[in-house]
Amino acid sequence: MFLKNLLSKAEKNQQWQPIIKAFEQVVGKDGVVQRKDELLTYECDGLASYRQRPAVVVLPRTTEQVAGAVKVCNQYDLPWVARGAGTGLSGGALPIENGVLIVTARMNQILETDLPNQRVVVQPGVINNWVTQAVSGKGFYYAPDPSSQIICSIGGNVAENSGGVHCLKYGVTTNHVLGLKIVTAEGSILDIGGTLPEMPGYDLTGLFVGSEGTLGIATEITLRILKAPESVAVLLADFETIEEAGNAVAAIIGDGIIPAGMEMMDNLTTNAVEDVVGAGCYPRDAGAILLVELDGLEVEVTHNIERTAEICRKNGARDTTIAKDAEKRAKLWKGRKAAFAAAGHLSPDYFVQDGVIPRTQLATVLRDIEALSKEYGYRIANVFHAGDGNLHPLILYDESVEGSLEVVEEIGGEILKRCVEAGGSISGEHGIGADKNCYMPQMFNQVDIETMQYVRNAFNPKGLANPTKLFPTPRTCGEAANAKKTTELKGAQLY
Amino acid sequence: MFLKNLLSKAEKNQQWQPIIKAFEQVVGKDGVVQRKDELLTYECDGLASYRQRPAVVVLPRTTEQVAGAVKVCNQYDLPWVARGAGTGLSGGALPIENGVLIVTARMNQILETDLPNQRVVVQPGVINNWVTQAVSGKGFYYAPDPSSQIICSIGGNVAENSGGVHCLKYGVTTNHVLGLKIVTAEGSILDIGGTLPEMPGYDLTGLFVGSEGTLGIATEITLRILKAPESVAVLLADFETIEEAGNAVAAIIGDGIIPAGMEMMDNLTTNAVEDVVGAGCYPRDAGAILLVELDGLEVEVTHNIERTAEICRKNGARDTTIAKDAEKRAKLWKGRKAAFAAAGHLSPDYFVQDGVIPRTQLATVLRDIEALSKEYGYRIANVFHAGDGNLHPLILYDESVEGSLEVVEEIGGEILKRCVEAGGSISGEHGIGADKNCYMPQMFNQVDIETMQYVRNAFNPKGLANPTKLFPTPRTCGEAANAKKTTELKGAQLY
Repeated sequence: MFLKNLLSKAEKNQQWQPIIKAFEQVVGKDGVVQRKDELLTYECDGLASYRQRPAVVVLPRTTEQVAGAVKVCNQYDLPWVARGAGTGLSGGALPIENGVLIVTARMNQILETDLPNQRVVVQPGVINNWVTQAVSGKGFYYAPDPSSQIICSIGGNVAENSGGVHCLKYGVTTNHVLGLKIVTAEGSILDIGGTLPEMPGYDLTGLFVGSEGTLGIATEITLRILKAPESVAVLLADFETIEEAGNAVAAIIGDGIIPAGMEMMDNLTTNAVEDVVGAGCYPRDAGAILLVELDGLEVEVTHNIERTAEICRKNGARDTTIAKDAEKRAKLWKGRKAAFAAAGHLSPDYFVQDGVIPRTQLATVLRDIEALSKEYGYRIANVFHAGDGNLHPLILYDESVEGSLEVVEEIGGEILKRCVEAGGSISGEHGIGADKNCYMPQMFNQVDIETMQYVRNAFNPKGLANPTKLFPTPRTCGEAANAKKTTELKGAQLY
Repeated sequence: MFLKNLLSKAEKNQQWQPIIKAFEQVVGKDGVVQRKDELLTYECDGLASYRQRPAVVVLPRTTEQVAGAVKVCNQYDLPWVARGAGTGLSGGALPIENGVLIVTARMNQILETDLPNQRVVVQPGVINNWVTQAVSGKGFYYAPDPSSQIICSIGGNVAENSGGVHCLKYGVTTNHVLGLKIVTAEGSILDIGGTLPEMPGYDLTGLFVGSEGTLGIATEITLRILKAPESVAVLLADFETIEEAGNAVAAIIGDGIIPAGMEMMDNLTTNAVEDVVGAGCYPRDAGAILLVELDGLEVEVTHNIERTAEICRKNGARDTTIAKDAEKRAKLWKGRKAAFAAAGHLSPDYFVQDGVIPRTQLATVLRDIEALSKEYGYRIANVFHAGDGNLHPLILYDESVEGSLEVVEEIGGEILKRCVEAGGSISGEHGIGADKNCYMPQMFNQVDIETMQYVRNAFNPKGLANPTKLFPTPRTCGEAANAKKTTELKGAQLY
C-alpha cells in the first residue's frame, strides 16, 4: 500500500522546482538532467520493451554526491533507481515513471591498484573491461566477463551479480568483490566487507552483491584480480545430437576437469552464425557444437585439452579441433561471441530467456524446449553456458505480428517453469528486475520473500530504492501480460 | 536495555516447570536435560575459560522439533543458544546463564547424497569428517577441514564459517554451502539458497553462514562436494629465518601457483613438535619450516611441486623434501597436525589467537609479535595458515600464576590490533563469539554494526537467539578483563 501511495505520489505533479534546486546544490547544474528530450535516453535499459520516463536524472561524481542526492530523495519521499551503463537485460535499471534516476556514468575512475595483494578499487561507472585493461600489462585480469563486458559497468555487475563465459571455473561477480562502500537508501555511507576474502560479522558484501539496487548504491568497489593464466587452449567439438553434446559436458566435469568456460550452440544458432559471420569453422550439419576453453599452466592445459577431446569423441563427437595460439582461439570463439547478433538475422525480433538447470538435466530440458517450440510454432535457438547449466534460449518472432510478444513471453515463462521443475532457477545471470519478479513465487514461498524484504528494510526502510523490482507484487504474470497487451507500459499498472 | 532486561529475567527464578513441560511435549522427556550435574557438560565450548550454566538443555531430532523448542523460548522470552559439537574456540556456543541451550547432537543423519550433482544434504549434528567418509568411496570429498574435523559438527561449521588447511585453494565453509533449511528465532522454518551455486534474490545463505547462531539454527544443510584430486604432493622446506619463509609464500602465490594448503611453523613450534611427536623430519635449527600441499592432475602436481621447491630454494630454503605417496605425505603433515597438542607440552597453558593479515605483511607482523613476546616476557609459538595470512600465535603461560591470563589476553589484543593496522582482521576462522566482540569496533564503525543488527532483526527481532555474542556491548575490553579477574564469569557482567 505504502508503495502504491509512493508511486502515485511520484506521478502526481510534484513541486519539482525546489527538488531540482536541491539536486543542483549537490551535483551542480550540469549534473541534473530534466529536459524531456534528454530524458529519452534513460527511459529503458537493455530490456527495451519496458519504458518509463524519470522526472529527473542526477549524475554524481563522488560518494558524497551520491549520498547527498539520495538524501534529497529521502527528504521528498521520491522513489529512485540507480543506473550504471544501462545494459541489463531484466529491467533492473528501468526508471520509476516520474521518479529519480541516479546515473553513475561520471563515477568512472579506477581509484587504487594494489597488485601484490591482487585488488583494484573502482568507482561504479568503470566499464568491466577497463579493469582487465588496467592490470593486464602486469599479468593480471578481472575474471567475470559478461557478454557486454566492453560496455557494461562494474556497478551494474555488482547489482546483478553478473556472470559470463568464465564463471564456470572462476565464479560470478560475488566471488570477486572483496568490499564495498555503499550509500544506503537513507543516505548513510557504509563500508562493508574489506580487502580480505573473509571478514568477521555478517557477510553484508555478499548480501549486497546481486541485490539489484534495492539496498542502495555501491560507490566504491574493491575487486579481486587474478594472475593471468600461463596458457589457454580452446577445443571445438561437433556432435550429431544435442544429447550427445550434453553427455560430453557431464562427462568432462565428471572427469574432474574444470574448464574456464564451456559453451554450447544448437544447429539453428550455428547456421545463423555461419550465415552472418561466415566464420567457416562451425560445421552446418552439426546438431550441436561445444566450445571448451581450458586455462592454467602450459603442462596442465596441454594434458587436459587432449583428455577433453578424447572424452568428447567417446561421447560421440564427430570431429574435434584444438586451438592454442591467440589468433586461432579467437577464430573459434568468434561465432559464439556473435551468436546473439546473428540470431537477429534469423527473424525480425528475438527474446532471450535466462534460466538455470542442474547439468545432469541438460538433455531433458533441451528436449522440453524443442517440444515447446513445436507446440507454439516459434523457432527457438539455443546458445548457452553449458558447464553451468545456464540456458539462454532465443525465442524468434516478429513483433509486428500482433500478439506475438505475448506468446513469446508465455513460452519464456513455460521454459522457466521447466527449469524450476528440473531443480533449477529462473535466472542465471541477468537478474530478476522488472521482468521476472512475477516468477519469484515459483522459487520462493511467502516467508522467504518476506524475510528478504525484512532484510531490505535494514538498508531501505521506506522502499524508495528501486521499488517494483526483484520482489513480486500482487499482479500475476497474466495480469502483466494483459497490461503489456494494452501497450501502455508506463506507470502504476506494471506494479 | 531490552537485552539487559531479558538476561536478568532469565536469571531470576523463572517458573521453569511449565516451560520444561512445554519442551518435553516437543522433544519428549528424554530430550530435555535439567539435572545440575548433567548440565555441567554444557557449561562451555572449546573456549573453556568462559563458563555459564544453562537452566535447561533441549535435544531435538527434527526440524519441527527445533521449531517447536524455539517457539517455546519465544513464548516465554527465554534467551537461547544453539550448540553443535561444542568445539568452537570463541565461545559462540557458551550458554546464557540460566537460559536455554538447544543441542543438535541427535540431528546426526546424512539425509541425501546426490553424486551426479555433487551435493550432500546433512543434519547439523553430522560430524565434518563423516561427509567425506560417506562419499570418498565414490571419489568425492568435502573440502573445508578445520583441525577439529573429526569431532566438530557441520552445524557449528556453518555458524562459524569454519576454515581449515585447505581453504587457501578451496575457500571456507560459505563457499561449500549451497542451501539451508533454517529455523529463525521466531520459530519459522525457512528454505534459503538451494542446490545451485547462484540463486536469484538476496544471498540469505551467505548471510546466514558465519552469523554465529544469531539468526537462527540451520537444521538441514546442502553441501557441495568435490571430486577427489587425482594426485597430491607435499613439500617441506626449511628456512633459516621466518622472513625468508614469508617471502617464499608470497613468491609461490605470485607465481600463479595455488597450493591446496600452505602452512608455516616457527622454531619454537618445530622443536615442540619434535620433542613430543618425535617425527624426526623437521630440522630443529630451522627458523621456520613451510609445508606446501599441491593437488590436481598428476601432470600438474608433478610440475608444480618441482617449481614450488625451486621458488623456495631461490628464497633461501636450505633444504626441500617432496612426498608423493600417502604414507610419506602423512609423515610430513604429522608434526603440523600435532602442533597445538605439542604446544601444550611447552608450558602448562597456552592461549591461541586467530587473526588475519594480508600475505604481503607476514614478515612485518611476525616481527611485531616477536617484539611483543620480548616486551611482555611471554613466549609465543607461531603455527599458521601462511597462504591465507591467517595467523595462530600460541601465547604460552601458566594459569596458576595470578594475573597471567589477563596479561596473555592483553598480548592477544595487541596482536589483533597489529593485524587490523596491517589491513587484516580480528578473526580468520574461529569467529567472534563471546571472546572477541569487544574488538569488533576496531574493524567496524557504529553504522556498520547497527546495520548488521538491523539485518539480525529480520530473523531474530527479540534478540533471543545467541544474545551477547558477535556484537560488541558497552563493556570495554578492560572491563571484560576485570570481570574475568574476579573469576565470577557467570551472569550479566559479561555482557
